Amino acid sequence: MNTEATLKKMTLREKAELVSGYALWFIKGVDRLNVPSIMMSDGPSGLRKQDDPTKVEESVKAVNFPASALTACSFDEDKLYKLGENLGSAARKEDVNILLGPGVNIKRTPLNGRNFEYFSEDPLLAGKLGSAYVKGVQSQGVGVSLKHFAGNNRELTRFTSTSNIDDRALREVYLKPFEYVVKNANPTTIMCSYNALNGVLNSQNKTLLTDILREEWGYKGVVMSDWGATDDHIEALKAGLNLEMPGKGELSVTEVVDAVRNDRLEESILDNSVYRILELIDKCKFAEKNNHEVKSLTEQHEFACDLAANSMVLLKNDHDVLPIKSNDNILVVGELAINPHYQGGGSSHVNLYSLITPLDGIKDHHGMVGFSKGYEENGKNNQQLIKDAVNEAKNYSKVVVFAGTTNSSESEGFDRENISLPDYQNDLICKLAEANKNIVVVLQNGSVVEMPWISKVAGVLETYLAGEAVGEATWSVLSGAVNPSGKLSETFPISLKDTSAYGTFGTSKVEENYHESIFVGYKYFDIKDKKVLFPFGYGLSYTKFAYSDISLADLDGELQVKFVLKNVGACAGSEVPQIYISNLTSDFEMPKKVLAGFTKVYLNSGESKEVVINIKKAEFTYFNPIKQSWCFDNGEYLIQLGESSREMHFCEKIKLEWNTDPVALINRDSYLDDVIENEKLFSLFKQSKLYAGLYQPVKDNNDATLKMMRYTPLRSVLMLGSYKTSSVVDEFVNDANALGK
Amino acid sequence: MNTEATLKKMTLREKAELVSGYALWFIKGVDRLNVPSIMMSDGPSGLRKQDDPTKVEESVKAVNFPASALTACSFDEDKLYKLGENLGSAARKEDVNILLGPGVNIKRTPLNGRNFEYFSEDPLLAGKLGSAYVKGVQSQGVGVSLKHFAGNNRELTRFTSTSNIDDRALREVYLKPFEYVVKNANPTTIMCSYNALNGVLNSQNKTLLTDILREEWGYKGVVMSDWGATDDHIEALKAGLNLEMPGKGELSVTEVVDAVRNDRLEESILDNSVYRILELIDKCKFAEKNNHEVKSLTEQHEFACDLAANSMVLLKNDHDVLPIKSNDNILVVGELAINPHYQGGGSSHVNLYSLITPLDGIKDHHGMVGFSKGYEENGKNNQQLIKDAVNEAKNYSKVVVFAGTTNSSESEGFDRENISLPDYQNDLICKLAEANKNIVVVLQNGSVVEMPWISKVAGVLETYLAGEAVGEATWSVLSGAVNPSGKLSETFPISLKDTSAYGTFGTSKVEENYHESIFVGYKYFDIKDKKVLFPFGYGLSYTKFAYSDISLADLDGELQVKFVLKNVGACAGSEVPQIYISNLTSDFEMPKKVLAGFTKVYLNSGESKEVVINIKKAEFTYFNPIKQSWCFDNGEYLIQLGESSREMHFCEKIKLEWNTDPVALINRDSYLDDVIENEKLFSLFKQSKLYAGLYQPVKDNNDATLKMMRYTPLRSVLMLGSYKTSSVVDEFVNDANALGK
Repeated sequence: MNTEATLKKMTLREKAELVSGYALWFIKGVDRLNVPSIMMSDGPSGLRKQDDPTKVEESVKAVNFPASALTACSFDEDKLYKLGENLGSAARKEDVNILLGPGVNIKRTPLNGRNFEYFSEDPLLAGKLGSAYVKGVQSQGVGVSLKHFAGNNRELTRFTSTSNIDDRALREVYLKPFEYVVKNANPTTIMCSYNALNGVLNSQNKTLLTDILREEWGYKGVVMSDWGATDDHIEALKAGLNLEMPGKGELSVTEVVDAVRNDRLEESILDNSVYRILELIDKCKFAEKNNHEVKSLTEQHEFACDLAANSMVLLKNDHDVLPIKSNDNILVVGELAINPHYQGGGSSHVNLYSLITPLDGIKDHHGMVGFSKGYEENGKNNQQLIKDAVNEAKNYSKVVVFAGTTNSSESEGFDRENISLPDYQNDLICKLAEANKNIVVVLQNGSVVEMPWISKVAGVLETYLAGEAVGEATWSVLSGAVNPSGKLSETFPISLKDTSAYGTFGTSKVEENYHESIFVGYKYFDIKDKKVLFPFGYGLSYTKFAYSDISLADLDGELQVKFVLKNVGACAGSEVPQIYISNLTSDFEMPKKVLAGFTKVYLNSGESKEVVINIKKAEFTYFNPIKQSWCFDNGEYLIQLGESSREMHFCEKIKLEWNTDPVALINRDSYLDDVIENEKLFSLFKQSKLYAGLYQPVKDNNDATLKMMRYTPLRSVLMLGSYKTSSVVDEFVNDANALGK
Repeated sequence: MNTEATLKKMTLREKAELVSGYALWFIKGVDRLNVPSIMMSDGPSGLRKQDDPTKVEESVKAVNFPASALTACSFDEDKLYKLGENLGSAARKEDVNILLGPGVNIKRTPLNGRNFEYFSEDPLLAGKLGSAYVKGVQSQGVGVSLKHFAGNNRELTRFTSTSNIDDRALREVYLKPFEYVVKNANPTTIMCSYNALNGVLNSQNKTLLTDILREEWGYKGVVMSDWGATDDHIEALKAGLNLEMPGKGELSVTEVVDAVRNDRLEESILDNSVYRILELIDKCKFAEKNNHEVKSLTEQHEFACDLAANSMVLLKNDHDVLPIKSNDNILVVGELAINPHYQGGGSSHVNLYSLITPLDGIKDHHGMVGFSKGYEENGKNNQQLIKDAVNEAKNYSKVVVFAGTTNSSESEGFDRENISLPDYQNDLICKLAEANKNIVVVLQNGSVVEMPWISKVAGVLETYLAGEAVGEATWSVLSGAVNPSGKLSETFPISLKDTSAYGTFGTSKVEENYHESIFVGYKYFDIKDKKVLFPFGYGLSYTKFAYSDISLADLDGELQVKFVLKNVGACAGSEVPQIYISNLTSDFEMPKKVLAGFTKVYLNSGESKEVVINIKKAEFTYFNPIKQSWCFDNGEYLIQLGESSREMHFCEKIKLEWNTDPVALINRDSYLDDVIENEKLFSLFKQSKLYAGLYQPVKDNNDATLKMMRYTPLRSVLMLGSYKTSSVVDEFVNDANALGK
């Protein structure tokens, strides 16, 4: 399509129709000009194509892939790309042009009800995985909608609440994954979230939608609203929103037409949105694209299983209780083994293709398996069920308990009240642990949970919401058919009390204050010197890895970290080496460390590989709130290479001087101390008019007075003498800086 | 003086001279017009009249009163008024017209090096005590300078650092004590602090110095700069600063004259400052005032002793180890017993009148006293000294160990690095506790310290920096001559790690971010559910008190709390009942509780009194960051009466409806839920055009769809139907609100 030409041919009314959604899931198109209508559907973990929004159960059958909470633990960009391919292929088969995902919001607190849809507490991880996912979907000629832009980190009063976030936290934490995906994967659309940012509704937020997204990041795609997120459609268009979803039918069209006619809206602004939407339709309509390979539901299901198994995180494995040996007789306990929690509620919810329960997944491959229910959700008879399970437990060599949260505690639409497992589950686990020392807990949950029984059990496998292949995937890890290689993409705290937003989260209907600023996730636990249950980046394997021959190379604008990784254990497996960096010289608050790079390496037993991870300058920068720009500090950085955020194999300081802008040595606010401590500067100072004007007793005092005043800025030295003009300060500052060059 | 007439007679040069300090401690006056020069001197805990700023030791001899850190623990406005009288009297005797104090900054973190000069972590306590102090000084015809205005809570880079404080924290915490003193005690001058607030240097901060201080609070006095705090004198005058101290001599005069001549400064702005300074001189010159009663240094010293003894806080007293009985033979341990830490460094430092050491204070009144040094500050032989002390300890019935910090760790000019006592002191105390079960620790320190040995000792007496009467005062409390009645004006944390600013305080040279917002002091420990070592408001007595017959009365705009307090112990003593309130209905974040009132009651053994505490509406309000004004919420409040912030004798909820402004029931951002849950509103909704326009399937659905959409705002209901105009939302909102009236 010649977009420019089409635009010129459109009537005002046709333009107004295009910037407003149509029939809940469509962009209308322009029949007269052969501009087709296109369709969009939820959701990030499987297609939820539906026509009647009130009938979730009637969406088309689709494979339910693991939730982002789990896929993020893969730390594997290739797998996320393949997930995107699968989803894109499925969408295309169903004539869906735009898939409404992925969500790359940051997990600020475990209480956010929608955390399961998001990747991580770390912006780089979320950005990289989000980018791979987007590229995968878009490789199928299907569009995405990167959501929810931005600062949407709670469900309470989500349409109206303002997220109050300071500039650094906004840029370095909450916007960063969006920026990364925009710059690296060019997502077709972005979905603007319901909430306000610092008092301005996102859908009408020019700073966010135009100044930052368009002008700073150079985004060329379409910005649509979350469903019902607009208040004033015209103000939204002016601020940079292109498409109101789902639209208010004829009303939306009329208000745009009227606004242009009444000069409330310049037609050029409308044209700008129309142009972008025409381009989007051009990109996402299928007619001309032939590179689409349809994947069968079975193929998709198999990939869902592979992805889940390679993402699950082995949290504990004392005395090698896992993998389960062929001669183990095992007792499976817990209603979740037969009625698993494998997907979240809300727009992620999929009408799935095929489900095998974990119990069946185990029984299909293992001979000696017993089952005891242990509990029923909201069951009245749980004490009896617990007793029965404990009695049974004594007769088995190992017990696999399925525990977790339920849909009623984790969904779009409301937040969690706590991060506890139900009491009856904690009770069950503690009592089982008294009866059998080989307890393995398998967790199904959307976000972190407390584990008061952690010291009493031998093994813990975190499976999050594993999707419809939960049964097969869980067994493949428990049995060792797949060696677990997932790493936590969020910190597991010992207690909710230890988390940054504890006490204030969700206590105001009107606003959510991001008190902890840039110190989100592991950065908070680090800065507060807090112990955690399991750190960010942590995960065990059935094999062992050794790190050696590590070296750093300053490539002038990029840091290269090189090392040799060897599988020194008995079986093949994957490891996720992680690079953390620390700015040691900044004038601003800094996290103790920041994830700056990672990779996933598969090694056979005994095999070793040289691994290279390059860290770009961008990962060393911070958003300077005074200059309102990204800055790099010349100076010392600590580089750490580890297998988690709290287990490092290598620490080294390196001095990086990538900033070639001239830096002033001093200014009028510099403290006298900076002058006294620098021999050259002090000598220059002694020859300056600023010094000459000092009262005689000060000069007679052999520098003693000056040294006493060392924490006085140069500009205030004027009070210690007699001067004709205050320009003597600037004069000295200029001379000093000239000296520095 | 006829200020108006004098002002008219002044030349531009004379005016310029008046707004700039003179000879370090003076306002110059205008000889030609018989406007006298007036003098000012440090400091808040005793007069520090000096001419040569480099020779602190040469200030005139003066009584050194206890530091505010201690006097605040009196919770006694009468005593603070008397302190003011004593200081004012002393100043007047020395021809000092303005005393540079008190400091009412909030103790945000125990690491601030200057905490000892400030009253409390609680703004109401700081405001009330500061007001009493100011009234006392001013009763002597001497002026004050309320300092350091504002947000000056660290010493690091104090001339240039910006304190980044959100609106609520600024108003409800950091400005509140200043507001209270301005409105209740009308301080003659206010000293503007060095730092910047949210990026704008305080001395040039119009919002702070004019919009808030003058226009909102109605302040009529003089605002002077802290010494050297100005950058651009002209911009400072424009922003509302009246007096630059100490001035830059002729340069300051010239720049003002030139600025007026070059139209950089309107003469009316200059006149405004000159007018205020003339009024100040008029108020503080002594000639016409005859009500001044000169107090002798001995009288002042006696008051210093009384004040100190009645402020000290008994933190622990197991098995009544205190008071010391006449037949106890006691071992005094610690260098601080003979070389006490009794005043802070910097502008508070006084050249004192008379000092009796704690050891002498004890020996003067008690027969059986031994002494062992225990440690020497920076001593190399402390292990031997500890051994000697431990050996001695076995021979005595009780051991009184003096422990504390030193001037080198607490002073104006730098912050603390930790809140530990020196290792050798902790070591000494632990070892003594193994040798004798009757260990009493007497603490001398400017701010809180950790007490790793707390469970091992029988008694702890907190004496802070007790002033020159430290010896007599300490003994009078140890012996029971004075029954301790001090209550902590700050929370003692178990560990520095538990405090709100841990990890970020002082880590940026450029800025200090007040991340914890309004949650300062006990409000932080409360909201985070943290255990503390000793809570705010806590302190023991040698007697016991009983609370009874408590009742609340809503006086429409004021809450009256009435109760009976009885001394049920064996000796006379004072108690400090404290009222805490909690807003249970706000739409905004709220502290768990806030100190709203207190009083100090003296009772003989067996005596009882009816106590009445009235709480004004102001204590129930909060600063609404959206409306930018103080707001009162109609609704439920929890009222608690306790003997500390964590030991309550009474809790009751009360519904207060003092806000008579019409409150809208709903607005376009209200959630559908608010309508559905209100029978009348829902019925009105059913008759509205908003309802009529809903798609037929929604209406056919028996409210099920509406209930599913309950967390949708009214404005977004438009996406569920077909409408000609969006005004149907406002129409329904108006009808609903009319119904509510």
